[in-house]
Amino acid sequence: MDAFNTTIQLSETDRIARLRLIRSDNVGPRTFRSLLAHFGSARAALERLPELARRGGAVRAGRICSDNDARDELAASARRGVSLLAPGEAGYPPRLATLDDAPPLLGVRGAREALTRPMIAIVGSRNASGAGLKFAGQLARDLSSAEFVIVSGLARGVDQAAHRASLAGGTVAALAGGHDRIYPPEHQDLLAAIIDQGGGAISEMPLGHEPRARDFPRRNRLISGSALGVVVVEAAHRSGSLITARMAAEQGREVFAVPGSPLDPRAAGTNDLIKQGATLVTDASDILQALAPIMERPLTPAFREDDEQLAADPQANERDRIVSLLGPVPVSIDDLIRMAETSPAIVRTVLLELELAGKLERQGGGMVSLIQR
Amino acid sequence: MDAFNTTIQLSETDRIARLRLIRSDNVGPRTFRSLLAHFGSARAALERLPELARRGGAVRAGRICSDNDARDELAASARRGVSLLAPGEAGYPPRLATLDDAPPLLGVRGAREALTRPMIAIVGSRNASGAGLKFAGQLARDLSSAEFVIVSGLARGVDQAAHRASLAGGTVAALAGGHDRIYPPEHQDLLAAIIDQGGGAISEMPLGHEPRARDFPRRNRLISGSALGVVVVEAAHRSGSLITARMAAEQGREVFAVPGSPLDPRAAGTNDLIKQGATLVTDASDILQALAPIMERPLTPAFREDDEQLAADPQANERDRIVSLLGPVPVSIDDLIRMAETSPAIVRTVLLELELAGKLERQGGGMVSLIQR
Repeated sequence: MDAFNTTIQLSETDRIARLRLIRSDNVGPRTFRSLLAHFGSARAALERLPELARRGGAVRAGRICSDNDARDELAASARRGVSLLAPGEAGYPPRLATLDDAPPLLGVRGAREALTRPMIAIVGSRNASGAGLKFAGQLARDLSSAEFVIVSGLARGVDQAAHRASLAGGTVAALAGGHDRIYPPEHQDLLAAIIDQGGGAISEMPLGHEPRARDFPRRNRLISGSALGVVVVEAAHRSGSLITARMAAEQGREVFAVPGSPLDPRAAGTNDLIKQGATLVTDASDILQALAPIMERPLTPAFREDDEQLAADPQANERDRIVSLLGPVPVSIDDLIRMAETSPAIVRTVLLELELAGKLERQGGGMVSLIQR
Repeated sequence: MDAFNTTIQLSETDRIARLRLIRSDNVGPRTFRSLLAHFGSARAALERLPELARRGGAVRAGRICSDNDARDELAASARRGVSLLAPGEAGYPPRLATLDDAPPLLGVRGAREALTRPMIAIVGSRNASGAGLKFAGQLARDLSSAEFVIVSGLARGVDQAAHRASLAGGTVAALAGGHDRIYPPEHQDLLAAIIDQGGGAISEMPLGHEPRARDFPRRNRLISGSALGVVVVEAAHRSGSLITARMAAEQGREVFAVPGSPLDPRAAGTNDLIKQGATLVTDASDILQALAPIMERPLTPAFREDDEQLAADPQANERDRIVSLLGPVPVSIDDLIRMAETSPAIVRTVLLELELAGKLERQGGGMVSLIQR
C-alpha cells in the first residue's frame, strides 16, 4: 500500500473487478484487503471465491457480483456525479485510507479539494438544546476559519448545525445509505447546499441502498476515520455519537467532548467521555492546540503488511481445530492463533474461508464469532 | 510535632503564651512555628521578639499582645462557646493541622466529633443558577450520607446550599471574621442551625474582628486545608472559589469540579479547572472513588522538621547580602538560599527578623518580598 505518499489511479478494468469483489456476498473491507493482498488482484480473487467459500463449508455458493452489474453501478454513479474511488486515489479522504477497514471503493461526490483537506468531525444529539446547537455552529465556524473541513452525518440537530455553519469553508457529509437515498429526506436541500458550496459527500453503499439502523454505526466509522479528531457536542447515555467516539478512539483519533451540567441528561454522554479521558472543549482553540502536533506527523496505515499473509491450503485437521475453538461468543484472533497452535497465516485463511461461506462475523477490535443459524 | 497520631493538651499557661505570640504584630502562622521550634516555647519566643525585630531594622517595636489581653480573649471566647485549640488538640481538624501555615490557635465552636471526622469542601458561586444550587445540595446530601462532614464558607449561593443539605450529617463553617462577626449577617440563623444539629464553626480571628476582603482568601485555606478535597460547583473566571481550588492543589488536596455548558459563564471556572486536571464530577461516587485510596494513607505534616532550624545570630554582612537580594518582586526562599551562598538557617533567621520588623511579606508557595513603605 503506497496510498499515503503518492496518488494512485486505477484502470477501468481494475475498478470494475474491485467493485465486483466488494459487492459480492460475504466480502467486507477486511476480507477484501486480505484477498487482494493474497491473490494480487481483484480479478484473481474473484475467480477463487467459490472454492474458498466451499472450503469454509458453504452450503450454497454466495452471489458474486457480475461484470454487467458492476458496469451498470459505475455508470449510474457517474450520472449522479459519484466517483467510486480506491484508497490512495485523488479525492479519497487520506486519513480514511489509513483504516484497516477503509472502504475498498468509496462513493464520493463534490469537491476533491474539500475531501482531501484535514477534517474535524462534529457530532451530537439529534434533539440537542438551543445552547448545544449554538455552540456546535460556533465551533464549526471557528474550525472552518482555521482551514479545517467539518465532517458530520447530515442528521438533525448537532450534525445539521455543524454542516450549516461550515458551508462556506467546505463541509463533508458521510451517508449511511446510497448517494440517492438521503436520510433524513428533508436534508436533501442541505446536502445540495454542501455540494454547491464546494463541500462533498461520501458513502460506501451502492445507489439505491436505503439506510437501515445497522448502517449508521458502520457509517460512523467513516466520520471518525476521515477526521483528525471527533468533537461530541451534547450526547445522552447510549447515544449514537458515543459509538462514533468509541470508534474514533479505536482508530487512534482524538476525542473531544463539550461539557454540560450534571443535571442535563443531554450532557451525560459527553461528561462521561471527559471522565474517560476525552479532551474537554469550551473553545475551538482547545481543539486546535491538541491537533497541532498530530498534524505534523506523517500518515501511516493502521495495519502491517504481514497481517495480510494467507496460507496456500490449510489441512482439514487444522481447519477443524480452529472451527472447534469458535462459537457465538466473540474471541480475539490473537487468542485464536495462540490456542490453535498453528501459524497465523493458516488461522487467517480458515477465518477467511468461513467468512466467505457466510459463517463468520467480524466484530470491532480484531474479534470474531460464528454466526448462529 | 506529634499532632497527627496522638492528642495533645496545652496547659493554660502555655495556651495564653501562644495566644500572646500569635496576636502580636508581624507574627503569622509560619513565623509562629519557626519561633516555637527555635526557642522551644511561646514564652521564650515572646521574650526575644523585640530583639529580633530590632535586628531586622524595625524603626519602632511592634505591639506585643499582653498577658491580660490574652486572658480576656480566652475568657470572652469561652463565654461564646469558642475554644482556642492548638494543632493536635482534640477538636482541631486533623488535616488542617498538617498545613505548614495551620493556625497556631484555632477558634472552634460546636461538636468536636464533627470537627475531627473526614471532611469534603463544597464551594462555588454566590450567585449560582438554580441547577447549581440544586446540584450542590444533592452532592452535599450524598456525601453526608457517606459519613463525610461538609465544610464550606457560609456564603450565599453554593455554600449555603451545601451547608443546608448536610445539616443532619454534620457540617462545618469556616469564618473569615471572628466568631461574633458573621458574614453575611443574614446567615446567623444558618450558623445557629449548623451548631444546633451537631456541626461546627472555625475561625483563626479574634472575637470582634470584622472580616475584610483580604481575610477571605486567607480563610479559604482553612476550608481546603481541613478537607480531603474541594468540590467547586459553578464558578466564573477569577472567582473566589478558584482561589480555594488553587490553595487545595498547593496543599495537596484533591480538586473536583462540576462541568457546565461553555455558553454558561458560571461554568467557565469549573471547566477550566477540569482542563487543568481537576476531576470531573457528575455524581458523589466520582468523589468517593477518588478519595478512597487517600483515606487509607496516614496523615503526614506538609513540612519537614529541618525547615525549622534558625541560626543563633547572623553576621551583619550576611544580613546585608540577603536584604540586597530582596525586593518588591516575590522571590523563592530556595533561590534566596542559593544566591546568598550561606546556610539555609541564616537565611531563614534573617527573613524572620525582617518579618518581625514588619518589612517582609510571605506569599504562598515559599515566596517572599519586601514590603514597600
